[in-house]
Amino acid sequence: MKNGVLPFNVPFLSGNEIHYIKEAIVGRQLSGNGLFTKRCQNWFEERYGFGKCLLTTSCTDALEMCAILCGIREGDEVIIPSYTFVSTANAFELRGAKIVFADSRDDHPGINEYSVRDLVTPRTKAIVVVHYAGIACQMDEIMNVANEFNLFVVEDAAQAIDSYFVDSDGKNVPLGSIGHFAAFSFHETKNINSGEGGMLVVNDQQFFTRAEIIWEKGTNRSAFFRGEIDKYGWVDLGSSYLPSEVIAAFLWAQLEKIDEVQKKRIALWEEYFEQLSGNSCFRVPEIPPFATNNAHMFYVILPNLESRTKLIEKLRSEKIMSVFHYSSLHKSMFFAKKHQGDNLFNSDFYSDSLLRLPLYYDLSLDDVRVICDKIITLC
Amino acid sequence: MKNGVLPFNVPFLSGNEIHYIKEAIVGRQLSGNGLFTKRCQNWFEERYGFGKCLLTTSCTDALEMCAILCGIREGDEVIIPSYTFVSTANAFELRGAKIVFADSRDDHPGINEYSVRDLVTPRTKAIVVVHYAGIACQMDEIMNVANEFNLFVVEDAAQAIDSYFVDSDGKNVPLGSIGHFAAFSFHETKNINSGEGGMLVVNDQQFFTRAEIIWEKGTNRSAFFRGEIDKYGWVDLGSSYLPSEVIAAFLWAQLEKIDEVQKKRIALWEEYFEQLSGNSCFRVPEIPPFATNNAHMFYVILPNLESRTKLIEKLRSEKIMSVFHYSSLHKSMFFAKKHQGDNLFNSDFYSDSLLRLPLYYDLSLDDVRVICDKIITLC
Repeated sequence: MKNGVLPFNVPFLSGNEIHYIKEAIVGRQLSGNGLFTKRCQNWFEERYGFGKCLLTTSCTDALEMCAILCGIREGDEVIIPSYTFVSTANAFELRGAKIVFADSRDDHPGINEYSVRDLVTPRTKAIVVVHYAGIACQMDEIMNVANEFNLFVVEDAAQAIDSYFVDSDGKNVPLGSIGHFAAFSFHETKNINSGEGGMLVVNDQQFFTRAEIIWEKGTNRSAFFRGEIDKYGWVDLGSSYLPSEVIAAFLWAQLEKIDEVQKKRIALWEEYFEQLSGNSCFRVPEIPPFATNNAHMFYVILPNLESRTKLIEKLRSEKIMSVFHYSSLHKSMFFAKKHQGDNLFNSDFYSDSLLRLPLYYDLSLDDVRVICDKIITLC
Repeated sequence: MKNGVLPFNVPFLSGNEIHYIKEAIVGRQLSGNGLFTKRCQNWFEERYGFGKCLLTTSCTDALEMCAILCGIREGDEVIIPSYTFVSTANAFELRGAKIVFADSRDDHPGINEYSVRDLVTPRTKAIVVVHYAGIACQMDEIMNVANEFNLFVVEDAAQAIDSYFVDSDGKNVPLGSIGHFAAFSFHETKNINSGEGGMLVVNDQQFFTRAEIIWEKGTNRSAFFRGEIDKYGWVDLGSSYLPSEVIAAFLWAQLEKIDEVQKKRIALWEEYFEQLSGNSCFRVPEIPPFATNNAHMFYVILPNLESRTKLIEKLRSEKIMSVFHYSSLHKSMFFAKKHQGDNLFNSDFYSDSLLRLPLYYDLSLDDVRVICDKIITLC
């Protein structure tokens, strides 16, 4: 708390960041793809059974790699929820895709899985799902549609570290391991962060080599250094997606503490849920039966824009910082004219009504109780 | 020197990197566009008179921003030297450009400015020059052609920090300040580094606002936080180009020492030049009269591929690491079939014959003398 203000977010620090950064610096291995990068990538592959992991400078960059790997060209259609961060769509716009926006569920901001089938056309190439607030989309249904129409599935798992889809057998399947590709974020607002940062996951083995080439600026440099080829050069599209080892060292310090972070966040989330449930002024999050909760975010849903705006202002006057986010992308200045015209009621509703409350490792259970008391009084 | 080996590169460390990174961490400002980012950007704007500077996660990313800012679309032609790093071309390939490769000068690997005019067609939209080894291209001639045909000029200044074009009045004009846009690199191999990192320079004022929007993921978020607009949203193409404050803090520690770095590198470069000049086995670099030398690189030019390969091997057996780089991009696996067919003799010649020698702050004048003695003996 700074000057009595409860900020909306305080990035988690494990305390070992400087220690590992020093280690990277002393080793003078500062550009990308060094020991810390490999350590982080292996950690994810082993813990969650992800196919191949490649650290990137942001989740946005990982999504751009997905768009290239899907082979998106001018005019290909990609189905994306409208209620999401701008990068989910921009990554595909940059490849010339025609974006077809889908609506959210009634009970949750995640994509309405039953609306997807109707949006498929012969030009559709990929479905991008966003595990909003770290809560799984209905991946069985999404994968069924994708398999039926031979589409790629990209999981935008920006918020979904250490979260699971509960399949029809009741088995927990890690988010990020289901689609052909997935993208994670380590932005400072995430459970685990490196300031800025992200990661591409490639689950379909036939894309392992190409992913590595795109990651290495479109060259087959990695294969060269493994001694698999005699000479390396320009073989594909690509960019410089590798973060510095300084960033990977920072991330490693955080990953070591993930269980501690998750335990704390879940306790805070549950305190919010208990305190705020059953109030007639707003709805609390519903976790669908096919999803676990990684406590990335606690939000309330107000009746409308006016009540949300008022609550934000009242909380600010009490020095509690709450924020809203995502404006339906299909109504944005950039996209409105291109939208196919469907009414995306739920997306618009969440744009107007969803309010995010402070949730971070440094917050205490007492802080949560204070916030909840204020909200209940102010409503 | 590790185990008696003289490595090709050792990234510079100022000693203050950890100090400033700690400052960023303590302030809990870890994502991009914070105090260190602004400090670095202001430093460049003031020292070199650059229009507007925006830190990026790599020079590649800055070049991609240039391609978007030039409005490159499918089929637009862009003139680029063939003897360059793959990112110079990939950034424009990603936007669908048709790349027209130009040859290098006889006396220097930089673009042959007199060859550019003949490559211009009605579809040409931009000329990308690369200040190879930090040595200026003939910018008066390039800007003349660009003005005549209304083309954008992008300076790939990856290697060109603190270097100048000497104009017809004998005035030193900073590289990166001449074209509409420029891109710098802070990769660990550069004079000043942040492990991975880069910077976009926008000199043409009419592009300031759009550059900032593209940098902020295609949103007008920056204008919103300055209070210029009421609400922010998706207004343009864009990506996540901002580096973490941890990277900006690292860079700041290096920029503070730039004069010390440059002094040392120039002394090392001059020692190489003195020791190796006048040898009949190879050529030493020629600095054209319109360029200053920022001592980014010392290279020798051997007669052919065979003699270069032999020298690399002999030096390696003496535990001295030298490297070659750039294979003509027009002959790459990715591009060969698309090349318009011109013979780019000089580009191919430098691809076969140019050899880079160790040059970094931690090298001593004695090291240089040892390397030179070996080269002269082995030739």
